[in-house]
Amino acid sequence: MKISARNVFKGKITGIQLGAVNAEVALTTAGGDRIVASVTNASVQALGLASGKEAIALVKASSVLVLTDSEGYQLSTRNSLSGKIASITEGPVSAEVAIALPGGGAVHATITHEASKELGLKVGASATAIFKAGAVILAAKA
Amino acid sequence: MKISARNVFKGKITGIQLGAVNAEVALTTAGGDRIVASVTNASVQALGLASGKEAIALVKASSVLVLTDSEGYQLSTRNSLSGKIASITEGPVSAEVAIALPGGGAVHATITHEASKELGLKVGASATAIFKAGAVILAAKA
Amino acid sequence: MKISARNVFKGKITGIQLGAVNAEVALTTAGGDRIVASVTNASVQALGLASGKEAIALVKASSVLVLTDSEGYQLSTRNSLSGKIASITEGPVSAEVAIALPGGGAVHATITHEASKELGLKVGASATAIFKAGAVILAAKA
Repeated sequence: MKISARNVFKGKITGIQLGAVNAEVALTTAGGDRIVASVTNASVQALGLASGKEAIALVKASSVLVLTDSEGYQLSTRNSLSGKIASITEGPVSAEVAIALPGGGAVHATITHEASKELGLKVGASATAIFKAGAVILAAKA
Repeated sequence: MKISARNVFKGKITGIQLGAVNAEVALTTAGGDRIVASVTNASVQALGLASGKEAIALVKASSVLVLTDSEGYQLSTRNSLSGKIASITEGPVSAEVAIALPGGGAVHATITHEASKELGLKVGASATAIFKAGAVILAAKA
Repeated sequence: MKISARNVFKGKITGIQLGAVNAEVALTTAGGDRIVASVTNASVQALGLASGKEAIALVKASSVLVLTDSEGYQLSTRNSLSGKIASITEGPVSAEVAIALPGGGAVHATITHEASKELGLKVGASATAIFKAGAVILAAKA
């Protein structure tokens, strides 16, 4: 699929919880990373999602936050991927940060240049990518 | 309305589905484009939304993905607008892409510079703008 | 907490409404600003959220819109913070705008350079930051 999303996680559906209108769908990548998506029940039907089915989770880099120290706080986000910073591209307003994941692949975040400076991000340092289940788009072949 | 959202779709409400807490509201533009928004039931009441009422759908450019080839995949997103790329503005980290819609008007997406390069985006080429119903804000006069 | 979110609102939980799957949680800052977050019931439990508990609301600058004149329109968004523009950083594609709040602190928005130009944003002018409850992440010590 040719799409602008910087984060494209291929994997298999490993869990589906249907609510009244929305569903929470978990996908596990070959590298063992678990991505949780919030989509509508209608989409679960339309995409024919079921445990074991191959699917892709798409996340825009602009939906991803970078955490370097939680200082004992817990977050309400369902998705959290930890690794080492592989690259940082700085612009006048934005910065793109790639975090390499231990299971292979990387997660990309677009943050502000100010945030990058304040956090003192450096290639090789540990960092965690954080995003909400509502920011995840699923794709599958019907 | 003077607001920073790059995507401002004026139209009429053409469908409302109330859930327990959230509602799905469809708006159709003069050009025939259909936008689906996920808002709370409380907002439907506060804005006095009803079929036929004039309203505006607002979408930040940063919430929009650009798809050039779905390669047979179906997506979980409720909004998909296809057209021809009208302009591309490149920065060191971000790129803004405008896609002209056949019914008139355009849809704007802010993507990463890397994504723009990888997709080989060119003015005049076909592209589809993709966004979640949860990324849409509605405005109306009460 | 060391995180890339430009908007970090410290305060106390002042309201929790549980739905079937999702909850709406209100936090009020020391400056009197009220932030509404949409999170899952599971997160309310995991973070031990309750009225009076200290918590942090996190919002990415890219999730925030800047409104300078509503022209009589009402919006479906739950969060609206008004103040005076304190700074504007322009890049080729993006612009970061900081709006100082009357109760202290500021709210940051990343918008497109085009939007900044069209709205004629100027330091010292009045502006309102708008964001959806779904864009808010909560953090708390369990």
